[in-house]
Amino acid sequence: MIFKQLFDKETSTLTYILADAVTRDAVIIDPVFGQEKRDLAALDALGAKLKYIVETHVHADHITGARAIKDATNAKFSAGKATGLSCGDVMLEEGDILHFGNEVLYAMSTPGHTDGCTTYRWKDRIFTGDTVLIDACGRTDFQQGSAEKLYNSIQKIMAYSDEHLIYPAHDYNNRRVSSVSQEKHSNPYLQLDKAAFIETMDGLKLPRPAKIDIAVPANEYCGNADAAGIDTSKIAHAVSA
Amino acid sequence: MIFKQLFDKETSTLTYILADAVTRDAVIIDPVFGQEKRDLAALDALGAKLKYIVETHVHADHITGARAIKDATNAKFSAGKATGLSCGDVMLEEGDILHFGNEVLYAMSTPGHTDGCTTYRWKDRIFTGDTVLIDACGRTDFQQGSAEKLYNSIQKIMAYSDEHLIYPAHDYNNRRVSSVSQEKHSNPYLQLDKAAFIETMDGLKLPRPAKIDIAVPANEYCGNADAAGIDTSKIAHAVSA
Repeated sequence: MIFKQLFDKETSTLTYILADAVTRDAVIIDPVFGQEKRDLAALDALGAKLKYIVETHVHADHITGARAIKDATNAKFSAGKATGLSCGDVMLEEGDILHFGNEVLYAMSTPGHTDGCTTYRWKDRIFTGDTVLIDACGRTDFQQGSAEKLYNSIQKIMAYSDEHLIYPAHDYNNRRVSSVSQEKHSNPYLQLDKAAFIETMDGLKLPRPAKIDIAVPANEYCGNADAAGIDTSKIAHAVSA
Repeated sequence: MIFKQLFDKETSTLTYILADAVTRDAVIIDPVFGQEKRDLAALDALGAKLKYIVETHVHADHITGARAIKDATNAKFSAGKATGLSCGDVMLEEGDILHFGNEVLYAMSTPGHTDGCTTYRWKDRIFTGDTVLIDACGRTDFQQGSAEKLYNSIQKIMAYSDEHLIYPAHDYNNRRVSSVSQEKHSNPYLQLDKAAFIETMDGLKLPRPAKIDIAVPANEYCGNADAAGIDTSKIAHAVSA
């Protein structure tokens, strides 16, 4: 079993590499623009053959690193069909699976943060994107956000047994992993019933994400910023180690 | 792969069941006195054949549930040789392994909280006992405690790659899992150099554990409280679900 977790300091994004330990066929989940060299070096160090670049959703806080990684590896771009992306190669619906070597990644539809949000499961590891964060959850005030849908999607994830590991797309507090049991006990949003959850989410007064006007258009082109008319040379990006 | 995590509310102890998914041979780590029915039911539900009852150390905060579980399953009692226990069946030293089915549990000597503290690794999961706790570490002010030894033992665990999962013997804040990376970044004790760590640990003014006078003697008999002259009928134990 090959599993690598990478962290982008600027956007607090967690990127994951999963690979079959024998065949070395691999998947990368949520790569970040500006970290392509890091990610390609990590794949290279693992002897991994990248099959799929998988997105949990159309991110508003960073541009995906998918474009450069696809150019370098010829891997297929994959995301939820409900994202509406027309630039992807393999678009997934509830219950669809991706094979990499003898390993299987299961897709489940978890709308709420965005309509196209997709959660992936590999063995007992659940990659929740922004649907479940550690002690938090994704906001629902833009990009088709819906607190009610998010509530239902969180319940779907929490239906897995206690020991399932939660690997989110972000953490802002130096945490790296949680579990269904931990979130059930410590996530304040998960202590609320549906009505209180919706009221809380709808009442959050959050600032507009700083990068949304460049991130969303570029991500709607699967990270092809040129096609989206985004001048990425102007994007300051401190590459973290 | 079969993995179950159980929590005892009264002592905030995390107990683990590991089993070979095919043969169902199993290990239980750090069972708690009073939770034997829960543990035996969990083993039964998994169809598990218990081979070993494994202790991370001679606990001061609870009596091990080993005695009743051993009587019910005929599993062998195992712990670090450096505990000095004469009641055990398989006493482990650095690098020793336990086989259960086709699975392997690796023992590493991690003295500091107590001299006999042993950390176990199964796949990418590290069962640290009280050596590394989530955002904390075990105290070093009784039972052969040594802040210097503990510092060295923590470094040994932190030498594993970032993604290794940390499963401690206790958590008092509703957390269930961490990783080497997370502890490196967020555990305040791991931000200290050796001298500062020793000064901090030696300067802690902690109350004496409430149950130490019954727990340690009973655990020195591998949980055979009768042999230790402990009247367990007087131990209030609220069994948690």
